[in-house]
Amino acid sequence: MRAEVITIGDELLIGQVVDTNSAWIAEKLNEYGIELFQITSVHDNREHIIAALDEAFSRVDIVLTTGGLGPTKDDITKHVLCEYFDTHLIESASVRAHIMELYKERPDVLNRLTATQWLVPENALILENRVGSAPLMVFHHGKQILASMPGVPYEMKIAMEEQILPYIENYELKITNYELGHILHRTLQVSGIPESSLAIILEDYENEMPPSLHLAYLPKDGMIRLRLSTYGGIPEDEMNRWFERLKELVAAYLIADSDEPLEVIAGNLLRQKGATIATAESCTGGKMASLLNKHAGSSAFYYGSVISYDNSVKEHLLGVPEEMIQAHGVVSEEVVRTMAESVKKLIGTDYAIATSGIAGPTGGTPEKPVGTVWIAWATPKGTYAECFHLGKLREQVTDRACTKALVRLIQLLRE
Amino acid sequence: MRAEVITIGDELLIGQVVDTNSAWIAEKLNEYGIELFQITSVHDNREHIIAALDEAFSRVDIVLTTGGLGPTKDDITKHVLCEYFDTHLIESASVRAHIMELYKERPDVLNRLTATQWLVPENALILENRVGSAPLMVFHHGKQILASMPGVPYEMKIAMEEQILPYIENYELKITNYELGHILHRTLQVSGIPESSLAIILEDYENEMPPSLHLAYLPKDGMIRLRLSTYGGIPEDEMNRWFERLKELVAAYLIADSDEPLEVIAGNLLRQKGATIATAESCTGGKMASLLNKHAGSSAFYYGSVISYDNSVKEHLLGVPEEMIQAHGVVSEEVVRTMAESVKKLIGTDYAIATSGIAGPTGGTPEKPVGTVWIAWATPKGTYAECFHLGKLREQVTDRACTKALVRLIQLLRE
Repeated sequence: MRAEVITIGDELLIGQVVDTNSAWIAEKLNEYGIELFQITSVHDNREHIIAALDEAFSRVDIVLTTGGLGPTKDDITKHVLCEYFDTHLIESASVRAHIMELYKERPDVLNRLTATQWLVPENALILENRVGSAPLMVFHHGKQILASMPGVPYEMKIAMEEQILPYIENYELKITNYELGHILHRTLQVSGIPESSLAIILEDYENEMPPSLHLAYLPKDGMIRLRLSTYGGIPEDEMNRWFERLKELVAAYLIADSDEPLEVIAGNLLRQKGATIATAESCTGGKMASLLNKHAGSSAFYYGSVISYDNSVKEHLLGVPEEMIQAHGVVSEEVVRTMAESVKKLIGTDYAIATSGIAGPTGGTPEKPVGTVWIAWATPKGTYAECFHLGKLREQVTDRACTKALVRLIQLLRE
Repeated sequence: MRAEVITIGDELLIGQVVDTNSAWIAEKLNEYGIELFQITSVHDNREHIIAALDEAFSRVDIVLTTGGLGPTKDDITKHVLCEYFDTHLIESASVRAHIMELYKERPDVLNRLTATQWLVPENALILENRVGSAPLMVFHHGKQILASMPGVPYEMKIAMEEQILPYIENYELKITNYELGHILHRTLQVSGIPESSLAIILEDYENEMPPSLHLAYLPKDGMIRLRLSTYGGIPEDEMNRWFERLKELVAAYLIADSDEPLEVIAGNLLRQKGATIATAESCTGGKMASLLNKHAGSSAFYYGSVISYDNSVKEHLLGVPEEMIQAHGVVSEEVVRTMAESVKKLIGTDYAIATSGIAGPTGGTPEKPVGTVWIAWATPKGTYAECFHLGKLREQVTDRACTKALVRLIQLLRE
C-alpha cells in the first residue's frame, strides 16, 4: 500500500513557509504500514494541481493533499477537486451547524466568506474538522482514495489522527486483503565517530544484509542516526536480530537504541532517578531550557534557568566574579563551572548544565574562534567541563552545543 | 526562468527529517528572479530519481537536487547522475587536495570511504564545497542545468550562496537575454482580525487587481501575513502603489509592512531606542529568550532571563509571594505583573516580558482551561497585562504566546 502527499500553496514555493506537515504525515503513514512514495509541493494553480493529481494517481493508491482550503480567493483546492472528480458544490447542513457552533462566541467570523466553507462537493465523503472551518473531504477514484486536509499544521494533525487514518485503515481492511503494519523501521543513535569510519566498521554487516533490509546513515549536529528499514520481506523477529547485531557492532558509540529525541531520553532518566535539573545559559540563550521543557510532563524534573546573556547577569545572578571573567574570559572552563554550580544551588536542583560560547558571526579571536563553546555539567558527584569547536554558523553552533550537552548528560545519568 | 527542487532521501519520506532546505532554496531563487515551480521529495532509489529528473526536465530550465552525496552505501545520487548524464567517475586532484586540507587535523576521517568523495563525474563541472567532502556537481542538459548539492542544510546553504547561484546567474546572462529579478513579492503582517473578515475588507481591492498580481493570505499563530506577488507584468513602481493601497486598507490591524520576523522588528525598535529587555518565563520556558537572541547582534538589547518553570523559582528568584500564588493561582494577572517587574529590576533592563500559562496537555480547570496564558509587559511607562486563550496544543500555545508577547511589545515600543 503506497501513498503520496501533495502540499498545495504558493507560500511553500517562495519559501515563506517550511513544510513540516509532510514529515509528520510520513511518520504516521509508516506507523500504519503505508509507504509514502513521494512528496510534491505545487502552486495554488488549477493546471498544476490537476497535473500533480494525475501523476500521483498513476503511481499510488492513496493521495493526501494539504492546503488551499481557506475561505479567501487565493485558496482553490476545493474547486479544483470538484472539477477533477466531476462534481459540484452543495450546502452541507452538518458542516454549517459545526461552523456555527465553532464560532458561536465569535460572531465577527460568521460572515459570508466563512459561509462558503459549508459548501462541499456533492460526491465527496465529508469528515468533521473538529478544530476548524474547512471540511475534510474524501474522494474515491476507483479503488484509489484522495483525502484533502487543511494546511494549518495543528488542524491537519487532528484531522489525520482522528478521521483520515482510521478511515483509510477501515476502508483498506474492508475492500482488500492487504495487511497493514509490515513496514519496520528501527533506529539507533551514535556519537563520537565520523560517518565514514562507522561505515567501515559496518561494511561486512552491510554486505551480509538481505536485499529487503536497508541501512541508512543520518548525520545531524555531530550525532549519527542509523536506521534499519524493511518494507516487507523480513519478519519482525529477524529484524530484531539484525538490529541487536547492529547495536553490538556500534556499542562503543551508542547513545540510544531508539529514535527518541535526546531531551526525551534525558528527561526519562531524570524522572527514573527522581532527580531535577536547571540550566545557566549564555550562548545557547534558552534553547537548552526550551528543549528540556518541550514535552508534556517536564515539570517533574525541569525546574528553571538563568539565561545570562549579558555579563552583568553572570556576575549578579550567578555570582561569577568579575576578576574571573577578566582573567580567563567569559568563554572559559572557570566561568562555566561557576555558572553550573551557582544555578544548581540557586534553583536547588540535583543537576545543572551551563554553556558559554561564541556563537558568531562576530566575537571570535585566534585563540577562541567562532564556534568555541565551553559546557559544564554539575552533578551530585561533582562538576565536569569540556570545550567544543562547533562550526561557524550561529544556529549550528547553538544546536550542536545543545546536542553535546544532552549526550554527556545522558552518559552521566547512566553512570 | 523556472526551477524545480528534488530532495533525495528516504529520511524525508519516513518523516525522520523535516525538509527545511526547500523553503530556504525557494526564497533565494525568488530573490534571484527565478520561479520555483515544484518541490519533489523522492527515495534513495535509482528508478525513482531518474523518473523525477525526467519529469522535472520536462517542465523547467534548472533542476536543483539535494541529498544522497555521503560516502556511505545508502547514498546513490552521484552514481545515478552519472548514469543519467551518460558519464563515469574519475578522480579529481583538486577535490582530493581540498578534502585532505579539510580533514588535515582529523586523520580518522581520511579513510577509504572518504576517498570515494574525490571521484567525480567526468562531464560534470565541479564547484568547491568549502565546508564538506561532497563535491558540488553541475551538469548541462542542452540549455538546461542540473546542480547537485549535499542535503546537510549548512553545507547546502554555503554551496548555493557562494557557488550555485552566482554560477546560474552568470550562465543565464551569458547564453540568454533573460533578465533576472522580475519576480516581486511584498508582504505585510496584520493582527487582530479573522482571515475571512480581512478578505471582505479587501474584496473590492482584489476585484480591481490586474490578473498578473496575486494576493495570498497566510495565517499563523494568530497573525495573518498578506503577500502581494507578481511573476512579471507589473513594474516595480506600480507594485509599490498597489502595496501602499493595501497598507492603507488594513492600517487598523497593521503590525509590519515587511516579512521580517517579529523578534527582528522588536529588536530593531529596541536598538533604535537604546533600550534593553529581559524575560521571566513560565509556560514559554525559554522560547521568548531564544527568539530574542536568535539573530546576530542581539546582545545589544537582550540581557537575560529567568525561566521560572517551578513555583519555587518564581518565589525565590522573582520574589512572587507564596500567598499571591495561593490567592490568585500561578496563572494570574498578579503573578505575571510581579514576574515582569521583578526580572526588569533584577537584570536591570528598560523592558521586560513575563508569561505564565497552562500549556497542557494537563493542568487545565473549568475557570482556566488549557491554553489560558497571562502575559505582562513592564515598560518605562508602567506595566501592562493581558489574558489570552491560545488553543489546546502545547506547542501551539507556547508559539502563540510568543507571538502575542512580541506583537504587543512592538506596539508599546512604537507608542
